[in-house]
Amino acid sequence: MLELYHAEPIANSVKVLICLKEKNLEFISHYVNLLRFEQHEPAYLAINPDGVVPTLVHDGNVITESSIINEYLDEAFPEPALKPANALERARMRIWTKYVDDYFGPAVSRIGWHFLLHPLASRLTAEERRLRLSRVPLRDRREKWATVAGASFTPEQLAEAREQIAEGVRRMESLLKNRLWIAGSEFSLADIASYCVIPSLPRLTPDLMSDLTTPRICAWLRAATQRAGVRAALAMPNRIPETLSALGLV
Amino acid sequence: MLELYHAEPIANSVKVLICLKEKNLEFISHYVNLLRFEQHEPAYLAINPDGVVPTLVHDGNVITESSIINEYLDEAFPEPALKPANALERARMRIWTKYVDDYFGPAVSRIGWHFLLHPLASRLTAEERRLRLSRVPLRDRREKWATVAGASFTPEQLAEAREQIAEGVRRMESLLKNRLWIAGSEFSLADIASYCVIPSLPRLTPDLMSDLTTPRICAWLRAATQRAGVRAALAMPNRIPETLSALGLV
Repeated sequence: MLELYHAEPIANSVKVLICLKEKNLEFISHYVNLLRFEQHEPAYLAINPDGVVPTLVHDGNVITESSIINEYLDEAFPEPALKPANALERARMRIWTKYVDDYFGPAVSRIGWHFLLHPLASRLTAEERRLRLSRVPLRDRREKWATVAGASFTPEQLAEAREQIAEGVRRMESLLKNRLWIAGSEFSLADIASYCVIPSLPRLTPDLMSDLTTPRICAWLRAATQRAGVRAALAMPNRIPETLSALGLV
Repeated sequence: MLELYHAEPIANSVKVLICLKEKNLEFISHYVNLLRFEQHEPAYLAINPDGVVPTLVHDGNVITESSIINEYLDEAFPEPALKPANALERARMRIWTKYVDDYFGPAVSRIGWHFLLHPLASRLTAEERRLRLSRVPLRDRREKWATVAGASFTPEQLAEAREQIAEGVRRMESLLKNRLWIAGSEFSLADIASYCVIPSLPRLTPDLMSDLTTPRICAWLRAATQRAGVRAALAMPNRIPETLSALGLV
């Protein structure tokens, strides 16, 4: 039995949702409402002490870290394969996925947190803020929450994130020069990793992506979004609008 | 044909050297002298534009990132296997390796840079410093070099790194409670990843590791160090003492 603890079909949650849907795997969905800080509640920390989503539970075994979950799913349920058959292409797949995890993704996330979470977190009272922050297990996450609960990122930090996104966009456009998908001729975990970041760019950094300047990324995004697995993942509930409304933020 | 660009048998270089030696693979060794900043020279940047070691070249194909290189070597040369046969244990192997890459290793590295590279980098003239820094391609690396070329890390930053090392030591001691090696009953890439950090702890943070407080890590280190592959990797040249001496630093 497969169970997935996840948030909306964006960021690291959509990464694992796409993998599950591409493989037509049945799973029990446990929705975690990040805007209500459910990821830091004791019930969730008992499953994932790091207090981040997603978390996979397979027959009682807990697996964390979205990129590792996807490698696991592809090994435990090999059909259809989401890793290239060739070892060199698999290495390319992992190099790109690590780049998205370590550089490209965090840069997009910084802009996203600024626009989405700063308005939410900066409204907390001093007491709520202290309580919320005390429950965040990972130090770097706690610092990120403290930042958006305060004055948020500086203009310099946001500019730096934009530069990193521009670099990621340049690299991806260049990778797609000679191939349809990122690691080779087949859709792979590297494309799924990119789907965590690329769809939000037209909204967060509209000047960095267009059919004129990044035609290959735009074509890649259209092709990826047409896949049945991706569409099924995107159809999972998105409660951000209703939560923001309930919190009086929109 | 395999070629490896690497530094001394420590940190990320020893990670790939152990993997190659455990598999008895022949390779051409290209030594990169980090203390002479050879990793930022145009000749090396033409091979690895990130300016970090190690880099593997297999039949002309460049593969970067030590953990990804090791996964590649294990797939391209499967015998003897360095990944557990079981998918769940492989996931555990990758979760620990990622933790070492993202948290444990960087904390050890901060203390190591402070003691080894700060005395070196802080002696550079303003002009040399500007030139050296301008050649470091990765922003986070450039900032790290700027830090050790200046006043180095603050006491708070060093204390924070020590706390993170203590946390890594606690986690590893706990992982070894029910098993001989980190991912299960066999020596794996997760043990190799740990070998980047653990051997330097008795020197860098002697109070955090001892037969009394961390008996399992100490037993693990002895068992790992007795392996033929690990011994062969450790026998690779270490030119740090002679380079420091040539630079007038010892």
